Amino acid sequence: MTEPTRSAARVEVRYAETDAMGIVHHSNYPVWFELARTALCRETGSHYADIERSGYRLTVTGMNLRFRRPARYGDTVEVAAWIERLGSRGIRFAYEVRNGAELLATGSTEHVWIEHRGRPCRIPESLAPEFRRLAGRRR
Amino acid sequence: MTEPTRSAARVEVRYAETDAMGIVHHSNYPVWFELARTALCRETGSHYADIERSGYRLTVTGMNLRFRRPARYGDTVEVAAWIERLGSRGIRFAYEVRNGAELLATGSTEHVWIEHRGRPCRIPESLAPEFRRLAGRRR
Amino acid sequence: MTEPTRSAARVEVRYAETDAMGIVHHSNYPVWFELARTALCRETGSHYADIERSGYRLTVTGMNLRFRRPARYGDTVEVAAWIERLGSRGIRFAYEVRNGAELLATGSTEHVWIEHRGRPCRIPESLAPEFRRLAGRRR
Amino acid sequence: MTEPTRSAARVEVRYAETDAMGIVHHSNYPVWFELARTALCRETGSHYADIERSGYRLTVTGMNLRFRRPARYGDTVEVAAWIERLGSRGIRFAYEVRNGAELLATGSTEHVWIEHRGRPCRIPESLAPEFRRLAGRRR
Repeated sequence: MTEPTRSAARVEVRYAETDAMGIVHHSNYPVWFELARTALCRETGSHYADIERSGYRLTVTGMNLRFRRPARYGDTVEVAAWIERLGSRGIRFAYEVRNGAELLATGSTEHVWIEHRGRPCRIPESLAPEFRRLAGRRR
Repeated sequence: MTEPTRSAARVEVRYAETDAMGIVHHSNYPVWFELARTALCRETGSHYADIERSGYRLTVTGMNLRFRRPARYGDTVEVAAWIERLGSRGIRFAYEVRNGAELLATGSTEHVWIEHRGRPCRIPESLAPEFRRLAGRRR
Repeated sequence: MTEPTRSAARVEVRYAETDAMGIVHHSNYPVWFELARTALCRETGSHYADIERSGYRLTVTGMNLRFRRPARYGDTVEVAAWIERLGSRGIRFAYEVRNGAELLATGSTEHVWIEHRGRPCRIPESLAPEFRRLAGRRR
Repeated sequence: MTEPTRSAARVEVRYAETDAMGIVHHSNYPVWFELARTALCRETGSHYADIERSGYRLTVTGMNLRFRRPARYGDTVEVAAWIERLGSRGIRFAYEVRNGAELLATGSTEHVWIEHRGRPCRIPESLAPEFRRLAGRRR
């Protein structure tokens, strides 16, 4: 077992993401996490949009965030994502948001695989090897 | 021809809608317009969600907004919508956002009817009489 | 010690809150929580906007969500909030989102008090009795 | 008089930006415009965040959008912005959103300069030459 693959998305803070405190509103971090998760999924060779088109979805069942320092308009942050736990039916992704060397926030999201009729299912056979590789497991 | 029906949606400003200037970010007004448009469509007797389920959609093709005074967290605004122009293939809705007696913003959105394959179409026969009534026309 | 006071905010799902899966995107739940938290704070007799104007803020330090069932455009959900833990320097609020009898999501947010220079502080003296009352404690 | 300077921001569509129609909700375009406007302002040598810190703001007074074709999750669009009209007290910016060669949307926003007390004012002296240059005027 090796280290899980880490993706990194660079996100320029949008004015619309700030709030009356002058900082990025906390509801934007799940959206940033999703950008980093999209970048990570792309490393499987399939864009998540293609996975959806093939009839499978990773629905969000849980989410956890810790906020340490605020981000502000004018900042460009880096959002890292990696697989923290890979099960046969679900995945936990972990995240870090940094502004340069400074850690702004951490978090995780939990997901289960859903097939086209909306029922939970096992990870599609065609994707399993690539997700295992991302998770840092030998195939 | 009589006056068009006006709907009114009361919207409590959300903290997430404010920006670093301490006011509601302008990108939220189209979302508020949509709430008032939903309330207006409900007056046809069919929720817009049901119209969509029947295979028809009113896609947005244009949008126009004027901002006069800002809204702030703590405010509850009233958003009015009415049909400004009703064609056989499209609709223009007009809007006003007020905070008490004070006019904050005005605007309009233009829409065309789309059928289930995504092609422009005429207003569904079953909805036409009700939309004409809302527009203030005799049937 | 009695039960904490529960506020309830009714939230009509906005079309803009849905995503390509046809359900409300998970990043909107923290925004809904905030509406219920605002309603709860109002029970102290001071709108949170007034608390901010007096120089104090409750910044978000953490957030936790579980999603059970999706909400959809056309739904009006009820979001309840209550104080789960009241400390001298922070608060944990808990939340439930229901669609009629059906529980859609649960969550909690953690906050610390910040004074006007941005430093953590104790709960303002003037607010402490009311927050204790909301938390279900005898004063 | 020469051509105005055009900035270009590349924007990866976020899942949260899509709606139940499977396309990007129209309320996101003003947010994308703002990213391109930020990129354009940066060409003056001052980030808009610095302009704000110096006590001046460009508030939005009007907005106009035409939607031709939808954007979808998986797309990366290019948003161009340029100065369409430069007055002593206000600016009109114009925008184009493209997906490759395909034009998705066009629009414009109107702004007036506001000083630190919130009153309309003339463009700050220090910024005027740079904005004239961006607008394609000889200084």
